[in-house]
Amino acid sequence: MAIILGVDPGSRITGYGIIRIDGRHIEYIDSGCIRVGEKPMAERLQTIFHSLAVLIGEYRPEEFAIEQVFMARNPDSALKLGQARGAAIVAAANSGLAVHEYSARQVKQAVVGTGGADKAQVQHMVQTLLALSRKPQADAADALAIALCHAHMNQSMLKLAGVGAKARGGRVRRQ
Amino acid sequence: MAIILGVDPGSRITGYGIIRIDGRHIEYIDSGCIRVGEKPMAERLQTIFHSLAVLIGEYRPEEFAIEQVFMARNPDSALKLGQARGAAIVAAANSGLAVHEYSARQVKQAVVGTGGADKAQVQHMVQTLLALSRKPQADAADALAIALCHAHMNQSMLKLAGVGAKARGGRVRRQ
Repeated sequence: MAIILGVDPGSRITGYGIIRIDGRHIEYIDSGCIRVGEKPMAERLQTIFHSLAVLIGEYRPEEFAIEQVFMARNPDSALKLGQARGAAIVAAANSGLAVHEYSARQVKQAVVGTGGADKAQVQHMVQTLLALSRKPQADAADALAIALCHAHMNQSMLKLAGVGAKARGGRVRRQ
Repeated sequence: MAIILGVDPGSRITGYGIIRIDGRHIEYIDSGCIRVGEKPMAERLQTIFHSLAVLIGEYRPEEFAIEQVFMARNPDSALKLGQARGAAIVAAANSGLAVHEYSARQVKQAVVGTGGADKAQVQHMVQTLLALSRKPQADAADALAIALCHAHMNQSMLKLAGVGAKARGGRVRRQ
């Protein structure tokens, strides 16, 4: 059994999603958005850091997954996104969590089955895979998708490693 | 009297400089570099965060100053710089420090007297202003320059506010 925290950081909205994997069973725990849009920059980062630290303290995830950024749109937005990512990653690393990064393409591939899927498809599949009664908000859905991608990668690695049913219920720690 | 921590963040080297102002007297306390160049990204950010948290715990600064970034070279370096900045700012904000930002131009203007000064001039003036026996390493010098800029801005604000000699020894807290 492992609890995974997925995070989709942004300078205005940071989505988070928490799931539990137990063998082949995946369970939704929590998701939501940390909204910091109107605050001064340092307060925004502190709010992202603190909110994630509180979530980590509450749900005690063993794994942390975040989207890898390859091509930011422009230097200014890249800097702002980087700051939000830095605050989020420090919150995880400071709690002793290993940080796993996945590209947007890997996340879409894992959740929808195609790396070129759009946001609405990701939202729909997250709702379906986690049997949610309603569609999660877009940033929360992205964070849940990142957590699902990490769960999927772990399962795939187990299969690749030839680990059988007996071990599947155990906790997997990569790297 | 106020202790100021200046930080010049980078994805490989983060410079820091700590000074104490007491009225018109400025005293050098410490400076150095946090080198994280070879580690995985999350560890780098955690090291920046942790090292600054340790310095804050040791020297108990009241003020934190960091360089404002207007134009990053490209999205990739902007993202990396942003992450390092995020880790540094969260370390300060998490310790209850107000975060002050100054542009490179403001820093050079305050320390050298001209916004177009080069790195060597900044290093030289930092050494002179703080009466250091030798030239500080470039990143440490930049961090000390940022701290000196903040000290200078505080003094200027006192003058603008018409605060006399009596109050100059007191602690100044902006914003």
